[in-house]
Amino acid sequence: MAMPEKRYLLTPGPTPVPPQVLAAMAAPVEHHRGPDFKQLFGRCLARLREVFRTEGEVLVFTASGTGAMESAIANLCSPGDRVVVPSAGHFGERWAALAEAYGCEVSGLAYAWGETPAPDDLEARLRELGGATAVLLTQSETSTGVVCDVEALARVAKAAGALVVVDAVSSLAAVPLEVDGWGVDVAISGSQKALMTPPGLAFASVSNAAWAATERSTSPRYYFDWGRTRRAQQKPQSPFTPAVPIVAGLDVALGLLLEDGLESAFAHHARLGRACREGVKGMGLELFSPDEDRSAVVTAVKVPEGIDGRELVLEIRDRFGVTLAGGQGRLEGKIVRIGHIGWFDVFDIATALAALELALHGAGAEIERGVAVTRALDVYAGARV
Amino acid sequence: MAMPEKRYLLTPGPTPVPPQVLAAMAAPVEHHRGPDFKQLFGRCLARLREVFRTEGEVLVFTASGTGAMESAIANLCSPGDRVVVPSAGHFGERWAALAEAYGCEVSGLAYAWGETPAPDDLEARLRELGGATAVLLTQSETSTGVVCDVEALARVAKAAGALVVVDAVSSLAAVPLEVDGWGVDVAISGSQKALMTPPGLAFASVSNAAWAATERSTSPRYYFDWGRTRRAQQKPQSPFTPAVPIVAGLDVALGLLLEDGLESAFAHHARLGRACREGVKGMGLELFSPDEDRSAVVTAVKVPEGIDGRELVLEIRDRFGVTLAGGQGRLEGKIVRIGHIGWFDVFDIATALAALELALHGAGAEIERGVAVTRALDVYAGARV
Repeated sequence: MAMPEKRYLLTPGPTPVPPQVLAAMAAPVEHHRGPDFKQLFGRCLARLREVFRTEGEVLVFTASGTGAMESAIANLCSPGDRVVVPSAGHFGERWAALAEAYGCEVSGLAYAWGETPAPDDLEARLRELGGATAVLLTQSETSTGVVCDVEALARVAKAAGALVVVDAVSSLAAVPLEVDGWGVDVAISGSQKALMTPPGLAFASVSNAAWAATERSTSPRYYFDWGRTRRAQQKPQSPFTPAVPIVAGLDVALGLLLEDGLESAFAHHARLGRACREGVKGMGLELFSPDEDRSAVVTAVKVPEGIDGRELVLEIRDRFGVTLAGGQGRLEGKIVRIGHIGWFDVFDIATALAALELALHGAGAEIERGVAVTRALDVYAGARV
Repeated sequence: MAMPEKRYLLTPGPTPVPPQVLAAMAAPVEHHRGPDFKQLFGRCLARLREVFRTEGEVLVFTASGTGAMESAIANLCSPGDRVVVPSAGHFGERWAALAEAYGCEVSGLAYAWGETPAPDDLEARLRELGGATAVLLTQSETSTGVVCDVEALARVAKAAGALVVVDAVSSLAAVPLEVDGWGVDVAISGSQKALMTPPGLAFASVSNAAWAATERSTSPRYYFDWGRTRRAQQKPQSPFTPAVPIVAGLDVALGLLLEDGLESAFAHHARLGRACREGVKGMGLELFSPDEDRSAVVTAVKVPEGIDGRELVLEIRDRFGVTLAGGQGRLEGKIVRIGHIGWFDVFDIATALAALELALHGAGAEIERGVAVTRALDVYAGARV
């Protein structure tokens, strides 16, 4: 039997998990109503507030990020409520689908996939509509690599009296998000991205204005009911049996993250993004995601003409044990995405670039050999952001 | 620093997890859209069908059991639909609360906590009402230790044209449940009970009649939408990022369970229940749960007069590192519950009985010393069920 190959998970989620976090997950399960777990859970809740930069509550659900997104619709909106969804990719479209499932009147502000929603457009739309119950934003559109200007978009939405709801699933702790400072009413995230923990937990921060809105919402909810969750978290407990090992892992990961500090994490992600983009360009490939410092979550690369991106991703995985992400929805086969969030360093970028270079060369693409990895390492070393 | 105490988790959920399962959870996270995870997930789905004893689909959600219970209401019912809920404890009441949250007209068939719902009562109620959309059953009422006769109750409900929905969260793989054989339309379960896996995953089996009902339901749903989940599972994938490590653990646990066989698991649980009850009686304590073979999930014991059950549970945990469960809701302080589901043997029963005996003796209760453990071991050895 051959030695098992080494494996590299370089997608924008799930992301690589530090061994300390994995080890914490292998500990015998604690009872979720016992004093030890309460202590652990209470510490996680406090650390989450630090990461979200809020004095308000951060609610924890055993679910994927989509579950917490749905909780926002179910707790804030009633059938017929108007919501505005600036959408430029797969996850913006998910907001619209979720709101439609609950009978909201969705005013879509649709951009081509890969574009960046503009505050002026949102302002004009809200003026035209005479306001809205909520504006549903996607901070990092993981399907395209675009990170939008949440601060500016939130300002416009607030001025029009709308609640600001932000999908920060792949961006939290990778790029700045000031929940209280920017007036974000609800920010959604998940355990499996920059929080360096396996998937299984999702989060929602809730402002006072959002709590007031829950009183008006008539949508049915039970498992995702915010009031029930808040009452339990005051003990501090989860209303229903949570994914205990994932909580134990999250506690360790949040400790690692906050020991270094959020500013350090933001700077690190910006440098990784720049290194990745420069490496890609050095190879002679074209970027799909914008070439700007904010694009620090995932780098989307156009697949050269005549090559099928789906096959390329499979080839890279099968030959080198390296898992990159392909395109989603209408971008399937057309782009390759390199994630660089969470427990990630510049040698992971080098690995991704080297594997991409080898596979493209093997597929007969006209690319520059021997440049990308060195360029990435140099840019990372020299980058001041 | 003292040696850390040994810890014993002897509650009816979460339950002890075998070390092989914990080890699988500490492996690096697989990408949930990659070929390795698909293989693992497909195998889990096939094994779940074996455990549920159904040819139909078993849907998997990253959620607690309550999330999967809610999925049944959201996918089967519309506001105004009539449902009948035979209820004799905390989890029966949860069915009623869930159905009310979705605007159903709930016809409660309420028993005192600790009683066992009777098929004749259900038949009379359904006749009186002229039928119902669904009957919501609780196979093992974990709050009281009662296991009801699902086969007989399902027969009555089917005859009246109602869908049969069963909460089998704590009973699946501990006591017999024949989903196809008994005409159960929907059975709900979770990873953290007799399936020997940490909490984080919940399941719902769906019959053809239940699939037909989903077409009629107007309740909003997205994360828990069965159709979306089924379409993804055909690939086989999860529609949203699942709790990957818990799925990896579940795969190992289901392998262990099915290697021994379900019949062996049922017989083992019945013997454990009998051993526990005989030990409790040997100590001179009174059972709260029925003294019958079906009570194989959790044994509820009345706390002697003058002793506070809440303090007793804390004392047992603090002094001996043994976690038992107290009473829930209106039984808080009045009973102690010893769980015996999943990765459990007779020495765990002995540990629970010994700790209970020591703590009650310390609290000044009049109990028989030195009998319970021996009685339990003898009964287990001699039991033929």
